[in-house]
Amino acid sequence: MDKKIGSASFILPSLPRIVSSAAFVGKKEGEGPLGNRFDVVCRDDTLGLESWEQAESRMLESAVRLALRKIDKEPKDIDHFMGGDLLSQIISAGFAARELQTPFIGVYGACSTMAESLITSAMLTDGGFSSLSVCGASSHFSSSEREFRYPLEMGTQSPPTAQRTVTGAAAAVLASSKNKLKDVQYGNLVISGGTIGRVRDYGITDASNMGAAMAPAAASTICANLEDFGVPPDYYDLIVTGDLGSFGSEMMYELCRSKGYDVRVNHFDCGKEIYSEDQKVICGGSGCGCCASVLSAKLLPELNAGDYDRILFVATGALLSPLSSLQGESIPSIAHAAVIERRAL
Amino acid sequence: MDKKIGSASFILPSLPRIVSSAAFVGKKEGEGPLGNRFDVVCRDDTLGLESWEQAESRMLESAVRLALRKIDKEPKDIDHFMGGDLLSQIISAGFAARELQTPFIGVYGACSTMAESLITSAMLTDGGFSSLSVCGASSHFSSSEREFRYPLEMGTQSPPTAQRTVTGAAAAVLASSKNKLKDVQYGNLVISGGTIGRVRDYGITDASNMGAAMAPAAASTICANLEDFGVPPDYYDLIVTGDLGSFGSEMMYELCRSKGYDVRVNHFDCGKEIYSEDQKVICGGSGCGCCASVLSAKLLPELNAGDYDRILFVATGALLSPLSSLQGESIPSIAHAAVIERRAL
Repeated sequence: MDKKIGSASFILPSLPRIVSSAAFVGKKEGEGPLGNRFDVVCRDDTLGLESWEQAESRMLESAVRLALRKIDKEPKDIDHFMGGDLLSQIISAGFAARELQTPFIGVYGACSTMAESLITSAMLTDGGFSSLSVCGASSHFSSSEREFRYPLEMGTQSPPTAQRTVTGAAAAVLASSKNKLKDVQYGNLVISGGTIGRVRDYGITDASNMGAAMAPAAASTICANLEDFGVPPDYYDLIVTGDLGSFGSEMMYELCRSKGYDVRVNHFDCGKEIYSEDQKVICGGSGCGCCASVLSAKLLPELNAGDYDRILFVATGALLSPLSSLQGESIPSIAHAAVIERRAL
Repeated sequence: MDKKIGSASFILPSLPRIVSSAAFVGKKEGEGPLGNRFDVVCRDDTLGLESWEQAESRMLESAVRLALRKIDKEPKDIDHFMGGDLLSQIISAGFAARELQTPFIGVYGACSTMAESLITSAMLTDGGFSSLSVCGASSHFSSSEREFRYPLEMGTQSPPTAQRTVTGAAAAVLASSKNKLKDVQYGNLVISGGTIGRVRDYGITDASNMGAAMAPAAASTICANLEDFGVPPDYYDLIVTGDLGSFGSEMMYELCRSKGYDVRVNHFDCGKEIYSEDQKVICGGSGCGCCASVLSAKLLPELNAGDYDRILFVATGALLSPLSSLQGESIPSIAHAAVIERRAL
């Protein structure tokens, strides 16, 4: 059976399930509007460890363990852990995988990592290669600032387009339809399909304007999904993007409209929702951990509870490196999309 | 049908095919013993571009295009490109994907990237999610030295355990068994299974002794493969590792022997074969491009020609970052394995 649809999409006939998830976030994220929904909010973003990088890795490892514990499983019970983060050589995920000791498939998609992991792992599950697996992603404000921008100690001011990298990690557990797991956190959630992103680059070179860099990728993947599946935007109760922020969202609307799709009405941007206005984060949150933790803390529980029936989860990633920026390169971006539905199982 | 075997392995019942491959290497690699087998050897490792990073990305893009051209295809004809490299945020692969404009799944497994891509893409192919896809990986001596060690301009001496990062990129084209492609480069090659690696860390902290850091991961994956499939080492005509080098290979033999497997006889290390002794590269080659280009230039053609029937392709990656090294972290490593066979099709 051919599971490919259109230019870049696919269906998952066996309907891999999302059975649990967990999110572990930083202090500031805990003070935001979703604060009481995260599984763990830390009071000290170092977790008492020696570096922010160690803390980020520990958050990801903990999110994986927590998500598994919710279904009474341990890392040794899974077929693979797939994930990544923003740091060079994805050390957060690599070091987390060292502690978890599971088979590990490392991916890099910048802030699109959670969607990349979900769709790739869902395809492996549908294909018969996994009965139980975990997808995860993490980011950390302090590790990202020194990786991509300036040392925090400099106290550099942020420009008006800046977004704040979310300190947070989240993990979601996928089970095959044949895995007759009981006592799950989510009894009704499946990934029914998805769209693999193409890299887009509109020539943005400002690393403080990621929303604008990523908007073309988001629009490209959303439109490809709608075209491939032959559905209108309101086929989805929500079209969720990861971290376009205020400016990036407006750009994305325009780009989609130019292709005949009005996605403004049912659009939800995780980056715009994770902080409140009085937290002064300018254009909102960003980072792998942003959409991953909002997915885990808000979207999956609400979907499972019946608040909506079907969402398109589109995470966007900016594929720059500190070196490519210094060399004057523009910022290519990519967006991957997962169709997540509530189904009576 | 359950395709999982044992602790970390899987079979691919539909036998995805490797139909073509291409390798594009640097000047020094072209002067080595495999020099006349690579598809392209450049005379200037910058390719006349402004940076080594741009050159590396161009090499990867070119390897993908070349591999596709051998079967009279173009990037627009494939379902996805999966690949990565060693640089921060895998910019070589990301920028190559921008030029190719195919759906892109970015992976990070350090020097294990080619095997990680091959097995993941082969699973997606077997699962019905791809009819034609490309896997690729690249590395570049000059971009790696400044990423991981010292600026070349310093003229730092290499210690006796050092390996040289190969300047090279390679790509392999996978086709599903249902894809009745004619006029292929390789008519008889399939990926029949594989083993997903677990991260291993024996506490090595010396970034100039990668072979020792990676040997435990190689031994772990090789032994897992042999156990999961229930076969002796000589089930494979060759057990190929990526870049353990001289010291790392000896360590790997000892570790396998401690588990009851003698793999010395049929072991082949790409890093030990890509340069000749008079090229003075100490312990051999390393980097994503090392095993990827040797696979493309030597192993796949020889396997297709009948020189051997079945190989275990085990690429090992050291999951360090420059930052994790500076922070005193040890070097975790991972190895992924693909079973590549000659079958009359």
